[in-house]
Amino acid sequence: MKLKVPESIIVASEEDLAIEFLSKIWGKRPTFVCAIGTTETAKIPGISAAGANPEITDFTPPADVELLMYGRCKCIPGVPITPDGIPTPGLLTMTAINMSNMPVFAISGGVRVKPIAPYFELDGAPGNDIRTGSAVKDPRKVFDSAIVAGENLAANAEYIVVGESIPGGTTTALAVLMAQGYDAENKVSSTLPVNPHGTKIETVRKGLSNAIFSPEEMRNDTMAAIAAVGDPMIPAAAGFIIGAARKVPVLMAGGTQMAAVLSVIKAIEPAVMGNIALGTTKWIINDKTSDIRDLVSQSGRVPIMAANFDFTGSRLSGLRIYETGLVKEGVGCGGAAIAAICSSKGKIDSATLLAEIEKSYDRLMTGAK
Amino acid sequence: MKLKVPESIIVASEEDLAIEFLSKIWGKRPTFVCAIGTTETAKIPGISAAGANPEITDFTPPADVELLMYGRCKCIPGVPITPDGIPTPGLLTMTAINMSNMPVFAISGGVRVKPIAPYFELDGAPGNDIRTGSAVKDPRKVFDSAIVAGENLAANAEYIVVGESIPGGTTTALAVLMAQGYDAENKVSSTLPVNPHGTKIETVRKGLSNAIFSPEEMRNDTMAAIAAVGDPMIPAAAGFIIGAARKVPVLMAGGTQMAAVLSVIKAIEPAVMGNIALGTTKWIINDKTSDIRDLVSQSGRVPIMAANFDFTGSRLSGLRIYETGLVKEGVGCGGAAIAAICSSKGKIDSATLLAEIEKSYDRLMTGAK
Repeated sequence: MKLKVPESIIVASEEDLAIEFLSKIWGKRPTFVCAIGTTETAKIPGISAAGANPEITDFTPPADVELLMYGRCKCIPGVPITPDGIPTPGLLTMTAINMSNMPVFAISGGVRVKPIAPYFELDGAPGNDIRTGSAVKDPRKVFDSAIVAGENLAANAEYIVVGESIPGGTTTALAVLMAQGYDAENKVSSTLPVNPHGTKIETVRKGLSNAIFSPEEMRNDTMAAIAAVGDPMIPAAAGFIIGAARKVPVLMAGGTQMAAVLSVIKAIEPAVMGNIALGTTKWIINDKTSDIRDLVSQSGRVPIMAANFDFTGSRLSGLRIYETGLVKEGVGCGGAAIAAICSSKGKIDSATLLAEIEKSYDRLMTGAK
Repeated sequence: MKLKVPESIIVASEEDLAIEFLSKIWGKRPTFVCAIGTTETAKIPGISAAGANPEITDFTPPADVELLMYGRCKCIPGVPITPDGIPTPGLLTMTAINMSNMPVFAISGGVRVKPIAPYFELDGAPGNDIRTGSAVKDPRKVFDSAIVAGENLAANAEYIVVGESIPGGTTTALAVLMAQGYDAENKVSSTLPVNPHGTKIETVRKGLSNAIFSPEEMRNDTMAAIAAVGDPMIPAAAGFIIGAARKVPVLMAGGTQMAAVLSVIKAIEPAVMGNIALGTTKWIINDKTSDIRDLVSQSGRVPIMAANFDFTGSRLSGLRIYETGLVKEGVGCGGAAIAAICSSKGKIDSATLLAEIEKSYDRLMTGAK
């Protein structure tokens, strides 16, 4: 019998594959994994809003991991916020995780500030500024270790949701896609009120022209593309997803950054793509300044679905503002919500999610302001 | 119906509790976790044989982890050996893991050489020489993160086997036990042909007299005992086991080092001890120079069982020598074998284990010599 998709989930592409994937995970227990990294790219003015200012973006990924594991951050007071004071989407993720009691893990591709929490170390390094053309040290080593972590974690899991936290990640995603010959300009999303496509493209072009590899090498070798202009989250997430998807379904949780991760998976082990879907938010699929459907379809037939968050009626202005298109996605909040909905067989829905997210907001933001 | 314990497992203490524990894990899928650390204590001449020479002991734990995950070491050629050329007991562990297809994880309390493999980072540091009286930096931080890792990993596991690899570990175990007032002198085991009790006790006494905490503080605060004269594996393993044993049965896999880990568990969360057993080897329980039964019983009623390895008929001298009492235990080889036997409901036994261990030996030691 064909699964009736609940209203709290929007199927955004590849409807048949999406319903097939949702049927596989319906009523099953999700395991959540957050892939993290930090880069100097995020500190270029105008690139990232994942932190109150560019210099503080090093703290955002570890703080997000702590939030997911402890319900509060340890390495910073309060929670990560945008320059406008909007709290990290990790708050949404944390709420979805708690509502469905998911086990949580973190994997690090390379971070400057370490989480005060357990995480899989893959012996990577934080990323350089991609304008140097030498952004990531030895991505293959991180990728190979991540495969082993993914395989072992998947051995006991029913399915896995993989989110990310890496400030500036859409710019490095754009760079990795362009380096491999994808048509990606003006298609990645942004946390900022106005998507700074110009700044991003200019940054990427500088990186590509300074790259330690030739255009042909980067087009033909996904690891060369990452090493030149990528970020450390990408090989960690791609390796982990490949290892896990050999054994269980994997829901890639994120926005356009995950298109870059998918391009790496497609380049190295496309066979696992049949066990993968992408879960994001309604704010991403409705975003007119980016095009996730097109970016994903350039890698292949991977279904996209979105959590149909509805914050319009929230009593909290910091949540209502999500409906204006700020933030949109991050820390796998869309995928985590989809997993919570599916694990509860639809008992968790947009309304119950909002109610619990408001409680989390009250608890965390009252002390933080 | 009461479980009939197979001949390949020896019940060494607390028979009723042992059979109850074995019944809980019979036919279940084990998950293996290796807790690692390195210390300067291991480099004191005459303390450790977990490496061809003291200086190389920093490589033994990462090499053991690589062996478990890849079936070969990456950070060293061949495999870790004793000064006499006997291969690491990790070779036995690896074989048991492969025979029953266990997922494998590593957790690091602090290592000087990093595994070329994924592992849970707990933000600890390698241990100092315990003679300084200031051996482990902030064990509470490692312990707290390890609890979270244990809880999350246990959420998907049927039960967990926790082994260790830390050279010099029986000396630091002795120190932690003595600091807490346990009667432990002459009771810890050794990999060496003659158990160097004198050297160990002298080392421990120097550490206790230089300790940064008073005797009363160390007796009453297990973390003070670790900080002064312990090693980084102990808080990692103890925290992880507490977190895991809140949810699923945990088989502590190791020799007398695990008595020190148990003393920490007993001091902090004794309620989980009902969900714990100790699995070791026949060479440990038959060892006349140590007394694991007594050490464990000082913490409480935790059953001890032993893998009834029988290498007497092996065609390989490097394995037959185990029967003379060299090496005895390490990398959780006894517990891993017990888990393999139980997961197969006794189909895997001492004979099939030896046959596969010989194959592993052939494959790994031919190239290494």
